[in-house]
Amino acid sequence: MLLNKERAIDLMEHYKIDALIATSSENITYSSNFPLLHGCMSDTGMYVVLPREQTISPVMIVSKNAVDLFLACDSWIEDVELWGRFFIFRSEELDVQSLSALEKKYDRIIKEVEPEASDLDALHKVLHERGLLDGRLGIDEKNLTPVHFETIKSRFPNAKIVPGNHIFRKIRMVKSENEIQRLKKATKVNELALQALLDALQEGKTEIELGEIYEEALRREGGKPVHRCIQGGTRGGLVNGEPSDYTFKTGDGIRLDFDCTYSGYYSDIARTAVLGTPGEKLKTYYNAVLKGILRAEEAIKPGDPVSEVFSAAIEVVRKSGIPHFDRHHIGHGLGLECYDLPLVSSTNQTPLEVGTVLNLETPYYEIGFGCAHVEDTVIVTHNGCERLQTTGLELKML
Amino acid sequence: MLLNKERAIDLMEHYKIDALIATSSENITYSSNFPLLHGCMSDTGMYVVLPREQTISPVMIVSKNAVDLFLACDSWIEDVELWGRFFIFRSEELDVQSLSALEKKYDRIIKEVEPEASDLDALHKVLHERGLLDGRLGIDEKNLTPVHFETIKSRFPNAKIVPGNHIFRKIRMVKSENEIQRLKKATKVNELALQALLDALQEGKTEIELGEIYEEALRREGGKPVHRCIQGGTRGGLVNGEPSDYTFKTGDGIRLDFDCTYSGYYSDIARTAVLGTPGEKLKTYYNAVLKGILRAEEAIKPGDPVSEVFSAAIEVVRKSGIPHFDRHHIGHGLGLECYDLPLVSSTNQTPLEVGTVLNLETPYYEIGFGCAHVEDTVIVTHNGCERLQTTGLELKML
Repeated sequence: MLLNKERAIDLMEHYKIDALIATSSENITYSSNFPLLHGCMSDTGMYVVLPREQTISPVMIVSKNAVDLFLACDSWIEDVELWGRFFIFRSEELDVQSLSALEKKYDRIIKEVEPEASDLDALHKVLHERGLLDGRLGIDEKNLTPVHFETIKSRFPNAKIVPGNHIFRKIRMVKSENEIQRLKKATKVNELALQALLDALQEGKTEIELGEIYEEALRREGGKPVHRCIQGGTRGGLVNGEPSDYTFKTGDGIRLDFDCTYSGYYSDIARTAVLGTPGEKLKTYYNAVLKGILRAEEAIKPGDPVSEVFSAAIEVVRKSGIPHFDRHHIGHGLGLECYDLPLVSSTNQTPLEVGTVLNLETPYYEIGFGCAHVEDTVIVTHNGCERLQTTGLELKML
Repeated sequence: MLLNKERAIDLMEHYKIDALIATSSENITYSSNFPLLHGCMSDTGMYVVLPREQTISPVMIVSKNAVDLFLACDSWIEDVELWGRFFIFRSEELDVQSLSALEKKYDRIIKEVEPEASDLDALHKVLHERGLLDGRLGIDEKNLTPVHFETIKSRFPNAKIVPGNHIFRKIRMVKSENEIQRLKKATKVNELALQALLDALQEGKTEIELGEIYEEALRREGGKPVHRCIQGGTRGGLVNGEPSDYTFKTGDGIRLDFDCTYSGYYSDIARTAVLGTPGEKLKTYYNAVLKGILRAEEAIKPGDPVSEVFSAAIEVVRKSGIPHFDRHHIGHGLGLECYDLPLVSSTNQTPLEVGTVLNLETPYYEIGFGCAHVEDTVIVTHNGCERLQTTGLELKML
C-alpha cells in the first residue's frame, strides 16, 4: 500500500471530510496502487473513493475496458465498480480451469459486475451504497475540467463538494514505507545511469551521444526518462537544455540534470562536470552552490518552518563566492510528482515533518558563463535528515 | 506551423470568439510549435493567445524559466510575454558576440523583457494591449482546474469566458500539411518497430523480450513508446496487456497493439500474428474483423456522417463470421491526442471532412480465446481515403 492511511484519516478529520475522491493519475496510483495512466488513458473517468470511516469500504471506479489493469495491480482495495459499454465476450463453453489466475479474476468480474452507463452513474451508486450522498466530499479536482466539476456538483446536489487535491498533496508530503522504497530505487537507477554517462564523457563526444548513453543505462535498470539536461560550456546558462550536437572540449563546465521515474516515483539529480581543470570562476561558484546544499541539509530539523532551510542555504551561497546569488526556491518535495510538497521557499512556513523527502537544489545560471549546479535528495528524520543519493556531491573532474 | 490557421479563424467566427487561448500541452504545441510539456512542467502557466482578427498579433505567455524552450522551437509566433521570479544572471562584461544564435536571442529577451509577477498578470497585460479585456474568449479549459478557471473569470470580469477545448479539438480534426508529415513519420517509425518485433517473434521468446525489441527499434527511429500490448494465446482477451513473462508456443494467436508518438504525434497500429497454422476460429474471426476495417475504408466519403462508417463495418463483421460482434466505436481521430476527433461511433453524426485522419479498429476480445485485432490509419480524401500505413493487414503467420 502506497497510501499513508493514518495520515489520510487524520487529515480528513482535520478538514472535516467524509470521503476523499482521487481523479488524477498520481492520486489514483497513490490511493490504490493502480499504475500511472499513459497518454491514451488520460480521460478514462477513474475514481478512488476513500471514506474516512474505516467501517465503510473504499472502492475503485474504473471503465470496463481498464479493469484488467486494476486486477493486475494487486491493490489493497477490494471493491470495484465498472462503467461503460465495452464488449468483452465470453463463451458458454469456456473452460475456466484452463485460465491463468489473472484471467480467472477477470472472467469473474466481467461475468458478475454489470457496468453502470457512465462514470458518474457508477460514482452515484458507490456514494449511495455508502451513505455518502449528503457527505462532505473532497474531490481531487486536478483531473476534472471546470465543466466536469460543475456536472459533478449538480449530479450530487445534497453533497458538499470541495476541492481535495491540496489534501491529497498534503497527505503525500509524508512518505509511507512503500513510497520510500520506490524513491530509493528511483534514486539508485538514476545514479547508475548518471555514472554510465560520466564514464563515457570525454572530449569530442556530443551532448546527444551522452544523452543516449544515459537513457540506455536508465532503461536497462527499469527507469523511465522524463527530462535530461546535458549542456556543455556556456550552453549551461539555458535552463532547459535538451541535448544538442554540441561537441565537448577541454575546459568545458558541463551541466548534468536528470529527472526520471521508477514505478511512478521521481528521482531528480544534478551534478556539474568539467573536462580537465576547472576555471577559477567555475571552481568558486560550484563550491558556493555546494556549500548551500550542505548548509540546507544541516538546517533541516523536524518542526522548523521550511523557510529556514531556504534562508540558511541562500546566505551561505552568497557568503561563499556568489554575493549576488538568488533563487525563488532551493528545493521541493519528491514523490509521485516531480514537485511534491513542500516547496523550499522564503515564504513557506510549513513545518518540516519526519518522512518528508526533499530534493535540494541551488543552481546558478549565467548567460555566457554556463551553470554551477548540484542537487541532493534527503529524507527528514527525527535528528535531521538522511541522504538518499550515494553519488559524491563534488565537482566531477574528468 | 502545425496550426490550421484558416480553419481556426473560420471556427472562431462560427463560435463568435474574439480569441482562443491554449493552456493544455497539446494545444500549446498545436498553436505555437512549442514542444509537448514533460512531467516536471505540467503546471507551468503557459498560454498561447490566438486573436481572431489577423491585425492583432498572437502571443506566447511563458514562465521565465521555460523561455529558452520557446526560443529553440522556431515558433511562427513572434510576441512573447514572461512571468515569474526566476534568476538567470548576466554579467556586464558578457561578450555577446561569442554566444550561439540561440544564446543571443536568449540574452536579448532576458535583458529586455521584464517578467510580470504571475501568469495571470501576464495574461492581463496581453489582453489589455490587444483590446481583448471585454472580448469573448474561448479558453482551453483542459489544463485549468475548476479553482483556476474561477480565478481567471474573476480576474477578467468584463470578458465573456467560455470553454474552448472543444473548439481546439474541432480545429485539430482536420490536419494541416505539417501535421500530416508528423503523422506519416509517426506511422513509419511504429511500423519499423513492429517489423523488428515480427522478425524476432518465435516459439520460446517471452512477451517482455519482444517488448524490448519493439521499444529499442522504436527509439532508434526517434519514436516514443506510449503503450504496448503483446499478448500470447488467451492473454489477448485482456484489453490492456502489458508484456509479461508468458512464453510463446506454436499455435498461439498473438495480439500486437502499439501506441507511440513522434514529435508529439500519435501512431496506433495493431496486427494479430500466429506461430504456425492458425486455428479455424482465429482464421474466421480475424478474417471477419479485417473485413470490417476494409468495409469501413470503403464507406468513407467526405460529407457523410461518421456513423455510417461505423454501421457499415459492424454489419460486415457480423456477416463474416462473428454474428454477435459489437463495439462502442470502431475508430477515432489521431493527432496530438490518441483520441482526436471524431469518434467513429453509432451516434456520431459529424460529417467527414477531407484531411481528417482516422484510426480504424474492430478488435474482438473473448476470455479464454484471446483477441482478433487489426487497426489501420487513413486520411480522408476527396474521393474516399488513403492509407498512412504500408504494413499488410493480413494475419501474420510466422
